[in-house]
Amino acid sequence: MAGNSFGQLFRITTFGESHGEAIGVIIDGCPAGLPVDLDYIQGELDKRKPGQSKITTQRKEADTVKILSGTFEGKTTGTPIAMVIPNEDQRSKDYGHNVDVFRPSHADYTYQTKYGIRDHRGGGRSSARETAARVAAGALAKLLLKTQGIEIIAHVSSVGKIEAPNVSINNADEFIAEREKNIVRCADPATATEMIDFIDSVRKNGDTVGGKVSCYVKNCPVGLGEPVFDKLHADLGKAMLSINAVHGFEFGSGFSGSGMLGSEHNDVFIKNADGSVTTRTNYSGGIQGGISNGMPIEFKVAFKPVATIMHNQQTIDSQGNEAEISGKGRHDPCVVPRAVPIVEAMAALVLADHWLRNRNAKL
Amino acid sequence: MAGNSFGQLFRITTFGESHGEAIGVIIDGCPAGLPVDLDYIQGELDKRKPGQSKITTQRKEADTVKILSGTFEGKTTGTPIAMVIPNEDQRSKDYGHNVDVFRPSHADYTYQTKYGIRDHRGGGRSSARETAARVAAGALAKLLLKTQGIEIIAHVSSVGKIEAPNVSINNADEFIAEREKNIVRCADPATATEMIDFIDSVRKNGDTVGGKVSCYVKNCPVGLGEPVFDKLHADLGKAMLSINAVHGFEFGSGFSGSGMLGSEHNDVFIKNADGSVTTRTNYSGGIQGGISNGMPIEFKVAFKPVATIMHNQQTIDSQGNEAEISGKGRHDPCVVPRAVPIVEAMAALVLADHWLRNRNAKL
Amino acid sequence: MAGNSFGQLFRITTFGESHGEAIGVIIDGCPAGLPVDLDYIQGELDKRKPGQSKITTQRKEADTVKILSGTFEGKTTGTPIAMVIPNEDQRSKDYGHNVDVFRPSHADYTYQTKYGIRDHRGGGRSSARETAARVAAGALAKLLLKTQGIEIIAHVSSVGKIEAPNVSINNADEFIAEREKNIVRCADPATATEMIDFIDSVRKNGDTVGGKVSCYVKNCPVGLGEPVFDKLHADLGKAMLSINAVHGFEFGSGFSGSGMLGSEHNDVFIKNADGSVTTRTNYSGGIQGGISNGMPIEFKVAFKPVATIMHNQQTIDSQGNEAEISGKGRHDPCVVPRAVPIVEAMAALVLADHWLRNRNAKL
Amino acid sequence: MAGNSFGQLFRITTFGESHGEAIGVIIDGCPAGLPVDLDYIQGELDKRKPGQSKITTQRKEADTVKILSGTFEGKTTGTPIAMVIPNEDQRSKDYGHNVDVFRPSHADYTYQTKYGIRDHRGGGRSSARETAARVAAGALAKLLLKTQGIEIIAHVSSVGKIEAPNVSINNADEFIAEREKNIVRCADPATATEMIDFIDSVRKNGDTVGGKVSCYVKNCPVGLGEPVFDKLHADLGKAMLSINAVHGFEFGSGFSGSGMLGSEHNDVFIKNADGSVTTRTNYSGGIQGGISNGMPIEFKVAFKPVATIMHNQQTIDSQGNEAEISGKGRHDPCVVPRAVPIVEAMAALVLADHWLRNRNAKL
Repeated sequence: MAGNSFGQLFRITTFGESHGEAIGVIIDGCPAGLPVDLDYIQGELDKRKPGQSKITTQRKEADTVKILSGTFEGKTTGTPIAMVIPNEDQRSKDYGHNVDVFRPSHADYTYQTKYGIRDHRGGGRSSARETAARVAAGALAKLLLKTQGIEIIAHVSSVGKIEAPNVSINNADEFIAEREKNIVRCADPATATEMIDFIDSVRKNGDTVGGKVSCYVKNCPVGLGEPVFDKLHADLGKAMLSINAVHGFEFGSGFSGSGMLGSEHNDVFIKNADGSVTTRTNYSGGIQGGISNGMPIEFKVAFKPVATIMHNQQTIDSQGNEAEISGKGRHDPCVVPRAVPIVEAMAALVLADHWLRNRNAKL
Repeated sequence: MAGNSFGQLFRITTFGESHGEAIGVIIDGCPAGLPVDLDYIQGELDKRKPGQSKITTQRKEADTVKILSGTFEGKTTGTPIAMVIPNEDQRSKDYGHNVDVFRPSHADYTYQTKYGIRDHRGGGRSSARETAARVAAGALAKLLLKTQGIEIIAHVSSVGKIEAPNVSINNADEFIAEREKNIVRCADPATATEMIDFIDSVRKNGDTVGGKVSCYVKNCPVGLGEPVFDKLHADLGKAMLSINAVHGFEFGSGFSGSGMLGSEHNDVFIKNADGSVTTRTNYSGGIQGGISNGMPIEFKVAFKPVATIMHNQQTIDSQGNEAEISGKGRHDPCVVPRAVPIVEAMAALVLADHWLRNRNAKL
Repeated sequence: MAGNSFGQLFRITTFGESHGEAIGVIIDGCPAGLPVDLDYIQGELDKRKPGQSKITTQRKEADTVKILSGTFEGKTTGTPIAMVIPNEDQRSKDYGHNVDVFRPSHADYTYQTKYGIRDHRGGGRSSARETAARVAAGALAKLLLKTQGIEIIAHVSSVGKIEAPNVSINNADEFIAEREKNIVRCADPATATEMIDFIDSVRKNGDTVGGKVSCYVKNCPVGLGEPVFDKLHADLGKAMLSINAVHGFEFGSGFSGSGMLGSEHNDVFIKNADGSVTTRTNYSGGIQGGISNGMPIEFKVAFKPVATIMHNQQTIDSQGNEAEISGKGRHDPCVVPRAVPIVEAMAALVLADHWLRNRNAKL
Repeated sequence: MAGNSFGQLFRITTFGESHGEAIGVIIDGCPAGLPVDLDYIQGELDKRKPGQSKITTQRKEADTVKILSGTFEGKTTGTPIAMVIPNEDQRSKDYGHNVDVFRPSHADYTYQTKYGIRDHRGGGRSSARETAARVAAGALAKLLLKTQGIEIIAHVSSVGKIEAPNVSINNADEFIAEREKNIVRCADPATATEMIDFIDSVRKNGDTVGGKVSCYVKNCPVGLGEPVFDKLHADLGKAMLSINAVHGFEFGSGFSGSGMLGSEHNDVFIKNADGSVTTRTNYSGGIQGGISNGMPIEFKVAFKPVATIMHNQQTIDSQGNEAEISGKGRHDPCVVPRAVPIVEAMAALVLADHWLRNRNAKL
């Protein structure tokens, strides 16, 4: 009820603050018998961890995950899987100036007012550090989905006003390989170079910039999603909007679809030579009536610029007095390169959950 | 689990198909002692009902709501409130041609594949008729919120490529009054005329068009929303994306925020002469760290064009054979005028739920 | 959250007060494709309805159930199934004397204090009339379980201090047939006669008496139940304790097991000639570690005497003044004969829920 | 969904196996601002830990709890509180003989069949070691309830066929003090001596014995509990039945109430000199219509004898072959002395949950 759990049948509960002992997650509902590839899980975390390149925060944290329960001889046992990631490089003193002053466009003011108390160090629970726990759990969900051939791939499709062209998703492995060749995680090499240069210039100005992540689900079977409130795209939307700094979500034709005519927008069914059913276009983004239709699922997520900038800003303190603040600590000039594994993880959690739910659709 | 419930503490469960006996909703968790204004609830339903004007479907249904339980002497008693709306004008024969042919960009194919059976008449459970139950429940949520001074107002801000300018939300009553003066429910009169003409021309071509609804929550206290997964905007996003035909959701700066710099985007806190705290700008859309900050909550919802068009379209039947279909029955050329009360209702359900949840934030 | 829903995957939500328009239930999560035998459902309701014999209340209500949604051409479609039972024989004036006086051992005082308002007519929501909705939903759960060969049978095993001997459950049909031959629903004929005579004498004294219902689940597969909090017997216990007037629940060896030694109590595994595994004794009541072990599930439910008696009783009114009250209206002298279908229904709801849940135990 | 969470608003999720890295719990929903007395929590754990006396298992585990998140400067912050207890004295080799042989009346056979895999060491997840996590969480719930003056006290009221007389609960501190004077945790000194001698003789025979725990909630305000399925006693019942080895639950008059007449059983309301309302008797056990009525809540829990005995027993192995097994390792001859803090903890979790839920009963 307090909002720290996600999913119905593949259900995660995360805990932990930025500068506490540790963060972690419990996964409840993973079926028994799934081989757990810990290297894969750690690899996903490594894509999210700070300190990867010149365009991410310079904090260094190993973010080494440890499984405390729920597996036996390398497989899941059907019991809850607890994963813990200790906090290491905590320069809490960097945050001493936040004790009593509310940082603009951060969660300081709302947390303090809601709870009457807050762990101000590094944003406490509101820190994006919490998403490491999601990435660990999402990696397990991906392993579950892989047993069904379902693949989830995402990349950075815009930074500021720089937009990448459409990139082929026909080969998931090539898509990922191309994306991982550059530090901004854009699968289009030319755009990637442009994005990196721009982020670097923004960083040098002590400023930050927003961006977008595009995500695709391939080989999703027909039937995932529940008809009314838990439509597949509604749960994907909630999952994405729950990631720090996200301000928008669209799937298929998205916002531009609202400017189209029905005769343009309808996805006509076609029967292929091999007997399979597909649609000629995919304005539906792989989802019709809230249920996957077998086409690739496509959606886009908009991230606002990081709120911590290295400029002086006017604000107020906890007594309501006017104050001034300037960013300290080590922060990301642009969040989207590290957001790619988070978007994939949240998508995997939604898909794993609906895959389990769909097993009970029919008698 | 099967997706027909929404909300945690102010929880609704809807039921019913387009051409069955009735549709309805149970509201569980409404506190005792709330006066129930049945005329108000019916008035909200009247804004959603078909047959209102030349730019909506010509089906006629009174959509008269009846309360079966949960109230006594005009007040809620704390027990579940069941509301039922009988189905009336059911021309099921209009749908005979759908028994075996899948309508493009509808839910026919996905339902049939998921469940192995479906009520094909009028879309059955996938019909937007289900949203009448949401409007009835949302009206009760609005009555609850009004006791706290919280107001929710929405209007049509675009139809096709026609976009309304920003409209003042300073006076909620005036906003609503202006909006209700025209059949497209846009609070800017000049744009409204343009929109109506455009929808009418689309309708005459047997086509349909998409659009957007903008929604605002006024006088929301600081503190609503839970920090991690159940962020206020994440729950609003899910609520909106669960409405039929919605393809996108954004709040505050939304998608355009992803193109901005942090130094432009940050909402600086200011202390007003009366001691209140506000922010100079509202790119955060009234929500910071997932929690309301006391500024107006602002979000936008994108609707795709209605899938039923009066053109011949190629498709397949349930045996996978090629087939042809053309729209019959009476359908909306543009869904957004009737979607305005649905958007408000879903927003009210989210706000009521989080208002109750927030009562337990502190000891 | 407000306690009107039960079950996780096969989930019911009930509504309605004793003297309102109607009572009813929504079932969400029943898989598609289940044939719905409405006569069977009505037959179960008929076993619960008032006015069946001289030892039940003389109120007459047909309790005719109507399905509003969720079925098509005689089968479930995977969408929510709403069932409604109109209220008919409402002599609300019988309850005029309750407006302001709290009936001893009823829910008047606690409802009034909790909610500040209550529908006092016939107990409102606290009336056992609510259980009719459970019986209707439970009948559907039984139909689901029958497709798996799982059978649930119960009978009255004690009234007051009269205890029935153990009755064979080898043949479920014969058990039920024997039970239905007498109006007290005890499967042992000699004890039934004794019980009926005793209830009749109690009734003539304007008094009431308690009793017990014993219930058995046959052909339950191994594996139903979740290990920690949602143990199969824990969910059965909650289900039974949620029935009006229930004061105790035990399974297998139950309370008497607490007086035994481990060497007496352990159920030794044996391998049968046909290769099947059973246990020599069944002190575990068919459940080990919270999970069904394939043996018959056995449990017992204790009902207190009905609180409404035809004697004068001292009490207080809503102002806290001393008052006197005597039972009016038409009430059951002993609740257990009509409780048998309710116990079976609640057991069926638990089993159906766990059967669905168990489908996801393994990959 | 997989049964490892309990509670709605004060919600716990436990994890961990007997011989894994650690066990633990996340508490989600504890309001902000509660002072956390870690010594108190550890003290509760110490009452449950093994190796306390000659009549408990001789395993030695410190069971030292560590809080990883959710508190700041000694108070709860409204974010999830994770507590971890490392596993220490794991003699996994004691369990080598269990790999392939199913222990009678244990969960080996049901786990293996349900999941197709199990951590056989010490019972894995089915071990009562899991209850340490409940005791830690329950201790926090008790601290929350203490702020409202609500107290929960339990003691051993029977061992085998030895039953303690009723003990005064007027003074909670004295009750606890008396109980803690003896190693069996019975508040009646004479009976305690008898119980201890009996358990010791049972232990020497390599056998085990069952018993009962009686629990009382004092100063519970009127209004806790939800009317239909989540009746206060139904949730208490489920909580107790979810504890390892529990076979029965009764409250108020319990099973003996089923043998009484209504005229004997009704609890007549009386107005006291100080204006307070009480009932002359308390057969309702402090709960009417599922809602607390302000009288002491009283219930009793029956525990079967521990299944591990030091005798040779016939059984089968995982291939279905006949086998023989004898208990090894260090086990409790009687579980009830260590069960007292578990019963109190689970009761506290239910009460804390319903206390939060009841805050939203009225507008």
